Amino acid sequence: MSRWVRWFSTVSPFRAEATMAPRLSHSFQVFRDVSPLRQLRRQLLLSDRTVGLVPTMGALHEGHLSLIRQAASENTDIFVSIFVNPTQFGVNEDLDSYPRTWDSDVEKLEKLNREFASLRDKSSVESSSDVPGQITAIFAPTSQVMYPSLPPSSEIDGPGSFVTITPLASKLEGASRPVFFRGVATVCTKLFNIVTPDRVYFGQKDIQQTVIIRRMVQDFHIGTEVKIGSTVREDSGLALSSRNAYLGTRRRTVGLVLFRALKAAEEAFMSGKNSRADILGAANDVAQKTLSEQEVLSPSDRVLFEVDYISLADPDTLDEIDEVNSSKGAILSGAVKMFPLEQSIPGEDCGLGDGKVPVRLIDNLILKPRTP
Amino acid sequence: MSRWVRWFSTVSPFRAEATMAPRLSHSFQVFRDVSPLRQLRRQLLLSDRTVGLVPTMGALHEGHLSLIRQAASENTDIFVSIFVNPTQFGVNEDLDSYPRTWDSDVEKLEKLNREFASLRDKSSVESSSDVPGQITAIFAPTSQVMYPSLPPSSEIDGPGSFVTITPLASKLEGASRPVFFRGVATVCTKLFNIVTPDRVYFGQKDIQQTVIIRRMVQDFHIGTEVKIGSTVREDSGLALSSRNAYLGTRRRTVGLVLFRALKAAEEAFMSGKNSRADILGAANDVAQKTLSEQEVLSPSDRVLFEVDYISLADPDTLDEIDEVNSSKGAILSGAVKMFPLEQSIPGEDCGLGDGKVPVRLIDNLILKPRTP
Repeated sequence: MSRWVRWFSTVSPFRAEATMAPRLSHSFQVFRDVSPLRQLRRQLLLSDRTVGLVPTMGALHEGHLSLIRQAASENTDIFVSIFVNPTQFGVNEDLDSYPRTWDSDVEKLEKLNREFASLRDKSSVESSSDVPGQITAIFAPTSQVMYPSLPPSSEIDGPGSFVTITPLASKLEGASRPVFFRGVATVCTKLFNIVTPDRVYFGQKDIQQTVIIRRMVQDFHIGTEVKIGSTVREDSGLALSSRNAYLGTRRRTVGLVLFRALKAAEEAFMSGKNSRADILGAANDVAQKTLSEQEVLSPSDRVLFEVDYISLADPDTLDEIDEVNSSKGAILSGAVKMFPLEQSIPGEDCGLGDGKVPVRLIDNLILKPRTP
Repeated sequence: MSRWVRWFSTVSPFRAEATMAPRLSHSFQVFRDVSPLRQLRRQLLLSDRTVGLVPTMGALHEGHLSLIRQAASENTDIFVSIFVNPTQFGVNEDLDSYPRTWDSDVEKLEKLNREFASLRDKSSVESSSDVPGQITAIFAPTSQVMYPSLPPSSEIDGPGSFVTITPLASKLEGASRPVFFRGVATVCTKLFNIVTPDRVYFGQKDIQQTVIIRRMVQDFHIGTEVKIGSTVREDSGLALSSRNAYLGTRRRTVGLVLFRALKAAEEAFMSGKNSRADILGAANDVAQKTLSEQEVLSPSDRVLFEVDYISLADPDTLDEIDEVNSSKGAILSGAVKMFPLEQSIPGEDCGLGDGKVPVRLIDNLILKPRTP
């Protein structure tokens, strides 16, 4: 009982904020609560419009914008959710330090809506299939709206209403983050129920998430279509991520090791190799060589890192495989932990947190089935 | 991998059946698969009709029919699902022996539709609020439709996509049936996603289920309204249950002990008592006295039973309480295990299974908040 009292008294200011939040003059509506959003959704449904949902935790970058562009090409209306979901962060993870950049997020979405409007103007005489939709709604709920009855728990045995997708959720990323995909599946279930989108958009960057969401939609018969957008990369090849802001120049360069390792493995596959030893061997060689090169440098020049895993897995079950089945292909993925800089140079761009925040990078490539 | 192969080969005959099932000439459509049902649902939505879902495991009795009547008074269209859900039965529970009575279920539903049609005819000149809806669809899926990617597991650590509602699901009935409410919440999530009903109907008989479903709908923001129908009882007071068919006359009579015990507790509350000791004491006295009376009878006359629990709980959390909060009221509930008859008399009605099947009875009464 006391836990409830604590929770409700803790969150009451947020509730007040949610209720009183003024409707700002954006090109989209901003919703903090469920029921007005449901009313809008119902109007759209009855007027035969289509809704694409792009779930985000904010800190929007080109990867998100690319998903929104894809959604705009396939729906009349786009809903973007911005919610840093507490239940997908473990007790010792970076929930508190996760970047929250509301003003710049809104600005990016406004800019995108102007881009869509301008495309609509241009294409008014052309075929309607080229006319992009618009961002119609931002859903930015409080934790209390999303977790109405109990405080959101980050403990694996914690109480609450959860969606679990096993054994998929305990593989790869889930091996070191036991509550992560339970949190993701739970919050996505809620978002899907609230928005009832025709299509939902996720980036390939978080490939295990895409596999789990697809499985969840299939198993629970959720009436939506899951669309996966390609990973957006910097020119160097580094996959975009909200957490890249913490890297700084030096770690950004060395952090490329993961992408280069995966690329080497992909090349092995493309050149006809099918065995785990050949494919992952190529990746591990790159990682080992890069680490050796760094280790001999001085602390003010080098970046140390640790490969968490490099995986070659079945695309449906995420089970590790010894041999790629040519007709199914495989998922090649990895995670690398970039350690904090040991010593910085005066004037060096060390990123947010002065290079002191460890950053875990993930990336993946899909090995497509070989054409027979 | 081998598990998948086994599962798909095991279920393939069902799949074939589902695909080829002829559309029988009922007053309702029978669906074995999801997508044609979704098409119908969408038509109903766009023509502004309302859908009430009554989820059942078949073996329909007056309790179910009463829920359907309530649904018909509140919706234009009623969907009844009939699915014996494997994931809510524990490994050693009665999944295989659970009564399956398709033909008689369909007959009861047909009769009900005739009743609704006749009421519609009569009320055509009266106010439209009295006009009942109709049973439009029966959804009777196979296990493979409901559990498409992995065989449904009845093990608490088994793999699969599940909805868990803790700690509610581990109390009362959940204490002795650890997978039960996970199975219920999971299958209801699927049914709600498939049917997207405006309202769903559950009986008060399974009170913990109603609390869990309400919580699930709240926590996951499921866009439906949960309606609870009163427990339907025989004239004697015995709550209707599909499992009563196994009781026979003798156990049916002695099985009333649970209802009588709960009634005694309710009377204590109604007479002004608020403490657990006073309220549950009254119930336990009835149970103990009844058992003592039986124990002195001969094995061919008596019925032995065991009280599993009699609970006085908070209506929202299902936590046991020491004192009823007058403004919240409480849930009074219990379970009694009726042992098999030790010795039957020639010609005695022993019920299905010749009195040899142990039957666990549950029942409950809601102690309403006292008016101040």
